[in-house]
Amino acid sequence: MLSDVAKTIEMPEVMGRLRDLCEERGLGELARNLEDLGRWIADDLVNVERELQEIEPHPTSLVEKAGTHLLGVGGKRLRPLCVVLASRVGSGASRSVLDLAIAVELVHNATLLHDDVIDVADQRRGRSAARVEFGNAASIYAGDWLLVEALRRVEAAGVPGAMSSLLETIAQMIDAESLQLENRGRIHTNRDLYFEIAEGKSATLFQWAMLAGALAGGLGVAEAAALQEYGRKLGIAFQVIDDLIDVAGDPAETGKALFTDLGEGKMTFPLIVALEREPSLGAALEAAAQGHGDPQEIVAAVQRTGAANYSRELAEELVEQAVVALEALPQSPTRSALTMLARSTIYRSH
Amino acid sequence: MLSDVAKTIEMPEVMGRLRDLCEERGLGELARNLEDLGRWIADDLVNVERELQEIEPHPTSLVEKAGTHLLGVGGKRLRPLCVVLASRVGSGASRSVLDLAIAVELVHNATLLHDDVIDVADQRRGRSAARVEFGNAASIYAGDWLLVEALRRVEAAGVPGAMSSLLETIAQMIDAESLQLENRGRIHTNRDLYFEIAEGKSATLFQWAMLAGALAGGLGVAEAAALQEYGRKLGIAFQVIDDLIDVAGDPAETGKALFTDLGEGKMTFPLIVALEREPSLGAALEAAAQGHGDPQEIVAAVQRTGAANYSRELAEELVEQAVVALEALPQSPTRSALTMLARSTIYRSH
Repeated sequence: MLSDVAKTIEMPEVMGRLRDLCEERGLGELARNLEDLGRWIADDLVNVERELQEIEPHPTSLVEKAGTHLLGVGGKRLRPLCVVLASRVGSGASRSVLDLAIAVELVHNATLLHDDVIDVADQRRGRSAARVEFGNAASIYAGDWLLVEALRRVEAAGVPGAMSSLLETIAQMIDAESLQLENRGRIHTNRDLYFEIAEGKSATLFQWAMLAGALAGGLGVAEAAALQEYGRKLGIAFQVIDDLIDVAGDPAETGKALFTDLGEGKMTFPLIVALEREPSLGAALEAAAQGHGDPQEIVAAVQRTGAANYSRELAEELVEQAVVALEALPQSPTRSALTMLARSTIYRSH
Repeated sequence: MLSDVAKTIEMPEVMGRLRDLCEERGLGELARNLEDLGRWIADDLVNVERELQEIEPHPTSLVEKAGTHLLGVGGKRLRPLCVVLASRVGSGASRSVLDLAIAVELVHNATLLHDDVIDVADQRRGRSAARVEFGNAASIYAGDWLLVEALRRVEAAGVPGAMSSLLETIAQMIDAESLQLENRGRIHTNRDLYFEIAEGKSATLFQWAMLAGALAGGLGVAEAAALQEYGRKLGIAFQVIDDLIDVAGDPAETGKALFTDLGEGKMTFPLIVALEREPSLGAALEAAAQGHGDPQEIVAAVQRTGAANYSRELAEELVEQAVVALEALPQSPTRSALTMLARSTIYRSH
């Protein structure tokens, strides 16, 4: 059962939402297992959530308001969950694990703040973006602030290797953002470039989350490598599903309009596949990237060409590769939990 | 004499420029001492400069171009000089000292990149700002990139206390930037707020530069504290002189127009004093802050009210307080060098 803390603080919704999704889809056993997992790690996640909310409980400056606005809106907290689960393959929860779990979520939020300024995004997690509420200037500094807060946690955790690997990870994320920026507005791109960007901007941070948990849990090199490979594959799958939601999701559930990425000049995986299969789609994509054109034509093409199904299958394949990476670890409840977590990302709707 | 490296790589100009300024003002002995100091630490500074230029010698992405554009334009490299000199109070130059010296300059440049985006600044160091050349988006990510590069150096240096103190310093800098942002466009401000912002955004990084050198040089707590106090006072003096240059400098030398700060809605110290002494100046300041009005009226008022002289006297007083802080250290050539460095900041023109 959940602790008192869990009852008074809103628990990260990720487990419950995944369980509901599995149930809807008739995956009852997976749903029950997820519920068990949710209880098992509830305390860890509640602690993460509480400390995230306590970073600045009474924001006064515009910068604090912009930073806590985004943190307060919530989010799936999947990256902290990765840290917690990876640590449990080893010695499990500790103050260091908690610090690293919070750090990875703060890095993620810091990048969102800067990305939203750069993309001139209006919505984030179904609410106004921080830049709309508090301005671009405050959002830029708020991103800097959350990044520094993250690094202070990592420094405080004192886990050898955690700081240097995180800094390397962030450098890779910036490289990928830079590559994405260079290619903004180019409809004719290719899969290699897509995966290079997806790995850099999304997968590396999942990979670091797994490494951080492994380091804090005292695991050896082989186990850490297996967990990192899991994180990398999960991260790419996550990005592909994210893309799919952007072209085929339900705006009421996702909290954002369709084709947000395309509107920001970013080609998503399903669109790359649809264009490969139907080159005449180029004109409609160009128009949509300029903010006009008929979105329904693209929605239809993504289904008609089979690009949506293909993208989902690719994500499923990546998830299975993530699960295979776990075979280097002994069987354990945590390994099962990681397996379930990976498979359940396929069913997420936002 | 300068080493071969010094001849082939452009040496940081700070020492030579200060020497020339002293000579112009008839301060021959100070000029000669500065020249000796320049030779003595030439190798250290040349190494800093070379490594700064080598961070990305062949920038390809927009983000790399934005970051290296700013680094390549040069700058006074005063903060690295502080690290080097502080270390020489102790055991002197080493790989760690070099890493920390480079890190402090990278942090400084990272903040300039974000500040220029936020201030919509067109010029920096007499050339187009990176945001003008490569765009706001690239400049935001370039700031992130240089910050991460800085932290990787600090991590590599492995000097206990350096990382945590730098992260604390950056957090203070962001707080101060936030405070400045909140007060943007307010002509009626006060000295307390001014000094709070100046300490946070300028003095803390000088203070950290001195601490970093002290830590890397193996100094004790008392010596480190004395050097930090020196850095803090020097940093505030530096900001006051910066302000004075903005209202009374020669644009041909400074590489930027007068009243840039006021145009960005920031009240500088001389303007605060002038307004205290001549409240009727408010209307002209309000107009200038909106981008119109007659700058010559303000230039005249800053002189007429004695605000310019008063500001210079305050900076001189702060510099003498910095020099007094050094009395906790034994007499040494490095202490003399620090004394000269502090006094010479009064004579800088940009």
